[in-house]
Amino acid sequence: MRAEIITIGDELLIGQVLDTNSAWLGQMLNKFGIKIHRINSISDDASEIKLQLAECLNRSELIIITGGLGPTKDDITKKTLADYFGMRWRIDEMVLAQLVSFFKNRGREMLEVNKLQAELPEGCITLFNEWGTAPGMWFEHEGKIIISLPGVPYEMKNIFEFKALPLINERFSQPKLFHKTIVTINVPESILAKRIEQVEDHLPSHIKLAYLPNWNMVRLRLTGIQQTGKDITTEIETYILAIQSILGDAVVATEDMSMAEIVYNQLNAKNQTLSIAESCTGGYISHQMTILPGASKVFVGSVISYSNSVKHHQLGVESTLFETVGAVSEQVVTQMVEGVRERLMTDYAIAVSGVAGPGGGSVEKPVGTVVIGVCSKDITLVKTYHFIGDRMNVIGRTNNMAFDMLRRLIL
Amino acid sequence: MRAEIITIGDELLIGQVLDTNSAWLGQMLNKFGIKIHRINSISDDASEIKLQLAECLNRSELIIITGGLGPTKDDITKKTLADYFGMRWRIDEMVLAQLVSFFKNRGREMLEVNKLQAELPEGCITLFNEWGTAPGMWFEHEGKIIISLPGVPYEMKNIFEFKALPLINERFSQPKLFHKTIVTINVPESILAKRIEQVEDHLPSHIKLAYLPNWNMVRLRLTGIQQTGKDITTEIETYILAIQSILGDAVVATEDMSMAEIVYNQLNAKNQTLSIAESCTGGYISHQMTILPGASKVFVGSVISYSNSVKHHQLGVESTLFETVGAVSEQVVTQMVEGVRERLMTDYAIAVSGVAGPGGGSVEKPVGTVVIGVCSKDITLVKTYHFIGDRMNVIGRTNNMAFDMLRRLIL
Repeated sequence: MRAEIITIGDELLIGQVLDTNSAWLGQMLNKFGIKIHRINSISDDASEIKLQLAECLNRSELIIITGGLGPTKDDITKKTLADYFGMRWRIDEMVLAQLVSFFKNRGREMLEVNKLQAELPEGCITLFNEWGTAPGMWFEHEGKIIISLPGVPYEMKNIFEFKALPLINERFSQPKLFHKTIVTINVPESILAKRIEQVEDHLPSHIKLAYLPNWNMVRLRLTGIQQTGKDITTEIETYILAIQSILGDAVVATEDMSMAEIVYNQLNAKNQTLSIAESCTGGYISHQMTILPGASKVFVGSVISYSNSVKHHQLGVESTLFETVGAVSEQVVTQMVEGVRERLMTDYAIAVSGVAGPGGGSVEKPVGTVVIGVCSKDITLVKTYHFIGDRMNVIGRTNNMAFDMLRRLIL
Repeated sequence: MRAEIITIGDELLIGQVLDTNSAWLGQMLNKFGIKIHRINSISDDASEIKLQLAECLNRSELIIITGGLGPTKDDITKKTLADYFGMRWRIDEMVLAQLVSFFKNRGREMLEVNKLQAELPEGCITLFNEWGTAPGMWFEHEGKIIISLPGVPYEMKNIFEFKALPLINERFSQPKLFHKTIVTINVPESILAKRIEQVEDHLPSHIKLAYLPNWNMVRLRLTGIQQTGKDITTEIETYILAIQSILGDAVVATEDMSMAEIVYNQLNAKNQTLSIAESCTGGYISHQMTILPGASKVFVGSVISYSNSVKHHQLGVESTLFETVGAVSEQVVTQMVEGVRERLMTDYAIAVSGVAGPGGGSVEKPVGTVVIGVCSKDITLVKTYHFIGDRMNVIGRTNNMAFDMLRRLIL
């Protein structure tokens, strides 16, 4: 069975908005053995939409469309689909009632354009939108399914997961598709490939290996389709074990997770706590930890010491060091990491200070120079790194290396 | 002239990696009047690549392909393109020399797979990769241009901007395309549309208006194509002024920028400083400020006071308040915002405390309840909000509202 996504919106084509919807839909469908074959991003233009839909209907059985369902004039998806399928209009009374109470609860006047959102093509099944005013739609056409969803991510997700997915599962039963990811750090992909060459060369044709490098990490993903007679999960687990035993301590996880998540799990299991002192990363490391639900079980707090004054007053770094060795130095980071651990009274701490760029570099400390420290009550480890890439790259690489240093210290 | 992007990689289709390359390419090309007509994300599969390329060559003059150029076995783009165009192989001596020095500088052994990266199809122009080992390629086929770039974002960006774009500009001269964005806050898109109905209904057919809602903000984008006789920039500026005068103080910027950037510009112009105390947002607000190059000119530092102990010890919040009114209260946030401003010695401060979810909600303070405070030396403003959406939504909305409260205070 082939599935495709169509995302509609000029904002995607000119790069004003990042398409996060397709990635999320890809993940969700994969869990149910449905692979997305193509993602097609197109313009808010009726003829482009019709052309793309015709192409997709030619080659796929399930087509998911996002975007263009809002109340404003640039939102043309609903009308275009009704045109395409030659459908008349109906008022969905349940949607209308829902809209009335939506505006009443928010104390907002209901405009004519809002009422129009209850008008839907006659032949489609309504997929209620609990978090917004634009309902999703389920069309069937010559045995194929077309689902239209709003582009606002949290509305789209809610409708898809609770309204569309149960219907999809009823309709399509798929051979099991299984993914398993190994997360590695600090080994370039060509060296990883060389080391696991033996395993890779002997993979059966129904199992694929992919390398996904990012910010000093490489994720290795094995993907397989269930064959009769063998359990794909067990089959893939065998290869995962083989790869893991070759790569040894380059492997930081055998599930697809962030470095923050790995450290969170370690600390949570031991009931221990973490504080962070960030300079050049400016809150990113703390954000990576606190994006995890339940972060408060291990994360106590941070000091973002962007200025030297904050490093001195809030973390106790000696002021003289800024002139003698500079803020980006192992001495300062040692005092930062021990200072934040003591003051925030945690079991462990992370501290970073560096030059994220584009400005601020010098001959001695060029852009990309970052000092990272981690500590427990008894041990402090501090190391200087030289990262390549732009500002966000330096921040991202620092984040990964900092969590990895702490991971090793905890181990 | 039609242009399209093909992004190659199963990781995009299963949602393991977000396609940020297309958005960036769309932005860059737009600056030069080139509109991307479609973004096509497809599988690492030779027949899919050939099929997609044939389709694109049928309808477009410029095709940019990203991904699949790495040294590992799952990287098949180069071989597939050579096959498709029926080209033999050549060794690019300059790439080889570059590779040798790349590995030497990094103290890494050069593997056979790395050497293979200097092998390129005979008929293509090499686009050097200064930051990695996979060169880009420029193909010409029946008067059309096909550019192949690596998928790693910072390598792709460097090659595209400095190697491919100059060649594209030589080749294609386009009628000017002009975008202008107005950023609004706190007015739903249907109400915005109602208010500017008169302007929207009178837009000429070569100017389009789009609404882009996200996290309590709506960006309004006008896009126009240069017509003979009139300057499109002046034409669009006239409509922007008309919309701006109708929407009044809902407009926070007339350039596409983040709330952090708006406040950064205000503070930078006045040579004033900012500190932040974050609870539920856990570093996100500070990260939004410090992702801006030169942030240190206005941003001094933050305290991420996730635990009540940090709120008390680092910010001076009275401990008794946690029991009487709770951490998510206007009293606590008042003490947080004044505490962080005094301790970090800044002109202004922001503080937030709330329930980001999914856990931690109560009947009195359900998930989405957030208290935001801003202050200067003389004035403190604190307000309670109820945001909808998931954890990241609550964090994002809090970020936007917090910066907006500070923006208004500074004004």
